[in-house]
Amino acid sequence: MPLTHFDDQGRAHMVDVGHKDNTSREAVARGRVLMKPETLALIQQGSIKKGDVLAVAQVAGIMAAKRTHELVPMCHPLLLTHVSLAFEPLPAAQPGEPAVINISATVRTTGKTGVEMEALTAVSVAGLTIYDMCKAVDREMQIDAVRLARKSGGKSGDIVLE
Amino acid sequence: MPLTHFDDQGRAHMVDVGHKDNTSREAVARGRVLMKPETLALIQQGSIKKGDVLAVAQVAGIMAAKRTHELVPMCHPLLLTHVSLAFEPLPAAQPGEPAVINISATVRTTGKTGVEMEALTAVSVAGLTIYDMCKAVDREMQIDAVRLARKSGGKSGDIVLE
Amino acid sequence: MPLTHFDDQGRAHMVDVGHKDNTSREAVARGRVLMKPETLALIQQGSIKKGDVLAVAQVAGIMAAKRTHELVPMCHPLLLTHVSLAFEPLPAAQPGEPAVINISATVRTTGKTGVEMEALTAVSVAGLTIYDMCKAVDREMQIDAVRLARKSGGKSGDIVLE
Amino acid sequence: MPLTHFDDQGRAHMVDVGHKDNTSREAVARGRVLMKPETLALIQQGSIKKGDVLAVAQVAGIMAAKRTHELVPMCHPLLLTHVSLAFEPLPAAQPGEPAVINISATVRTTGKTGVEMEALTAVSVAGLTIYDMCKAVDREMQIDAVRLARKSGGKSGDIVLE
Amino acid sequence: MPLTHFDDQGRAHMVDVGHKDNTSREAVARGRVLMKPETLALIQQGSIKKGDVLAVAQVAGIMAAKRTHELVPMCHPLLLTHVSLAFEPLPAAQPGEPAVINISATVRTTGKTGVEMEALTAVSVAGLTIYDMCKAVDREMQIDAVRLARKSGGKSGDIVLE
Amino acid sequence: MPLTHFDDQGRAHMVDVGHKDNTSREAVARGRVLMKPETLALIQQGSIKKGDVLAVAQVAGIMAAKRTHELVPMCHPLLLTHVSLAFEPLPAAQPGEPAVINISATVRTTGKTGVEMEALTAVSVAGLTIYDMCKAVDREMQIDAVRLARKSGGKSGDIVLE
Repeated sequence: MPLTHFDDQGRAHMVDVGHKDNTSREAVARGRVLMKPETLALIQQGSIKKGDVLAVAQVAGIMAAKRTHELVPMCHPLLLTHVSLAFEPLPAAQPGEPAVINISATVRTTGKTGVEMEALTAVSVAGLTIYDMCKAVDREMQIDAVRLARKSGGKSGDIVLE
Repeated sequence: MPLTHFDDQGRAHMVDVGHKDNTSREAVARGRVLMKPETLALIQQGSIKKGDVLAVAQVAGIMAAKRTHELVPMCHPLLLTHVSLAFEPLPAAQPGEPAVINISATVRTTGKTGVEMEALTAVSVAGLTIYDMCKAVDREMQIDAVRLARKSGGKSGDIVLE
Repeated sequence: MPLTHFDDQGRAHMVDVGHKDNTSREAVARGRVLMKPETLALIQQGSIKKGDVLAVAQVAGIMAAKRTHELVPMCHPLLLTHVSLAFEPLPAAQPGEPAVINISATVRTTGKTGVEMEALTAVSVAGLTIYDMCKAVDREMQIDAVRLARKSGGKSGDIVLE
Repeated sequence: MPLTHFDDQGRAHMVDVGHKDNTSREAVARGRVLMKPETLALIQQGSIKKGDVLAVAQVAGIMAAKRTHELVPMCHPLLLTHVSLAFEPLPAAQPGEPAVINISATVRTTGKTGVEMEALTAVSVAGLTIYDMCKAVDREMQIDAVRLARKSGGKSGDIVLE
Repeated sequence: MPLTHFDDQGRAHMVDVGHKDNTSREAVARGRVLMKPETLALIQQGSIKKGDVLAVAQVAGIMAAKRTHELVPMCHPLLLTHVSLAFEPLPAAQPGEPAVINISATVRTTGKTGVEMEALTAVSVAGLTIYDMCKAVDREMQIDAVRLARKSGGKSGDIVLE
Repeated sequence: MPLTHFDDQGRAHMVDVGHKDNTSREAVARGRVLMKPETLALIQQGSIKKGDVLAVAQVAGIMAAKRTHELVPMCHPLLLTHVSLAFEPLPAAQPGEPAVINISATVRTTGKTGVEMEALTAVSVAGLTIYDMCKAVDREMQIDAVRLARKSGGKSGDIVLE
């Protein structure tokens, strides 16, 4: 099966989706940020104030989802009808292990192609924002396991990867 | 040590860097994309043609670095003086293990604050672009271990994390 | 009635409009810029030349309407089918009173959600552009009374606020 | 005194600031959103949750400040070194009067031209975001009195307008 | 026949296309870059490596097509369903004549208005990118003959200009 | 002389200008739009009204200059200190020949690299805007001879190409 982003001469192009139906589509992506336990503690203390790290990361992720086609060259523009993010902070299970914030993003559209890239972009930029807001106290954070969790709609139907 | 992105009332703001010196700064970030061995094989076959996955990912990463301050809310705009990306494809070491493409991005500026976020954004968007261009053949790819490798310049001096 | 931009855990999200019908929608927003009478006189003298303040403000307002969803975090992207702006200069009614430029913007789409925000954004950015182009002669201008005038289309039907 | 945004033939241009010194500059802008008392009550109840209207408006205002030169045609790009916003909710003083949220934005740079437009843009987009997030319960909100409060730095020195 | 981008008072606006049908539309635009024969030779030598000038120009053209409505003020936003570019290098026919790279862009959508501007923008930005990447060796390149080649779909039907 | 946009492995990168001096730099680019004589006549009739084709093209060109580094992948971001455009309409010299609008753009900065690309982008987008606003009456317009006219500043000193 060839990579569909290449044309006959091997050059990249934006594949033609004009013949596809406008259907309801949803994608859920996940990822996580690994950090020092004390970094997570600071985020959680901050989160009881009015402006918290996760509130900013959430806005950043939603706004980034809308700009996916500006960032990922071969992505089609889509009219997103829903974007949401959720964060799950997990303190370190054992001494010496990192703390974790799990991120998930849900994106929906009615359109000719799926919204996997929008959900993955939302997770990535939310992770970058957490990194940015905490880097003064923890430069060793990692954004990890950014992946598609499930998608529905379109010709390929429902796909559940987790 | 408090999170510097919060002001006195706990609201997020863009911290004041006006008093900092304009110095030469560099940051190197790394990450990797995990994929099926046959996906890597397809990318590598494509890479001998004129338009290859990694060429598109490289352009995407460079362009994203320049837009970091539009994506990450509390990031300062900076005049980047250099951006480059490198990719290292690693076939699966063992049957059953994933193949890997290591991504690294190097960003430089002369400015009042560092370019970690720009390097991390370049790696993330390059990874998203690889995902996008191969998702028709492999939906289970993961973008993993996006992290700062080293930085130099500024008050905190040289930091090597790997 | 709860604020629909919040999800169940109180976090902001982009509300789901996927179930809404694609209908013809229109919104008209208004606002005004208060200024010194002599500032208005300068604008009006300029307006008989080829490039005038209001011509630039009009272009700025139209372009801003198209970028509303990039500026207002929870706004849905929409395919605008029409944007226009009109300006009404009003010399000061009494000595000592400010002169006024009334701004109105009309935006239309066929889509799943209304275009109030696009019309309000067009008015705001047109006002900011007037401020910018005249600030060398009048720093005390004010952008005032930016508001929705009327909207039609969608489930809520026609609403006239003035 | 002529409008400096026009060239000799009366066409708009971006005025030359190349000869100006790079100095520390600050601008403070203010504005307010008028709303029904019950709308303010809803915002304030929401503000004790993790994601509140004002937290989103604050992020939107900061991000918009960085994009001012993309919105206002004759504005020069600048490297902002600081952006912050503050909100002051004022319940209705009398029955029948509107409630108010006062918005102020502070922007700083080291550059060749001032940051008034960036501060005014931050206030305007924060106001638009408040409108957007509350419009389901109150369509009659107004964004009002968007104005420069004070500026410092540059050839014109300190100016205090309030 | 009046220019449709002007309203009744002679001001520019984004014309109303709300009443038009959503139909399949395609446009093909062409242009060329004139250069020294040795510049073309360098590009062609580069093109056998992994990252070549035309690969970058192609990505730039595709990404620019998606942003046409942000650049051209009265352009409507559209959901592009396909974008591709092709390059044809032509060595100098005679000594003393320039070498040429012909550029063509094909854009498709299903929408209420045509995609001529998107195709022309893709060609222009691809040409600018070629100029940028080669300007260290040839400052006298020219971007030439940027024009519509053909379009189909919509009320005006098929138009072939070459 | 190798193409400086390629690194050692032949991949594109944004070349390092960190070692260059911040000097005053200027570039002038030119181009022209060829059109039917009656199209030029319509533009000129419109140009005596408040909103004319060239006023919109001028704003579009100025705004595009500021976004050059977002469009042309390997371009460095720069703080433009001046942008202006001029238009020279030339009626057809002979029956059967096209009418012409000559476009020139002047861009200045104080920075580490030149502003040729910004001037060329301003001319190109001004040309595209003229095309867009007149395409309802003339689909055969051409944007032609987009080129660098002269530049000054930086290590290469003054260069005059016309």
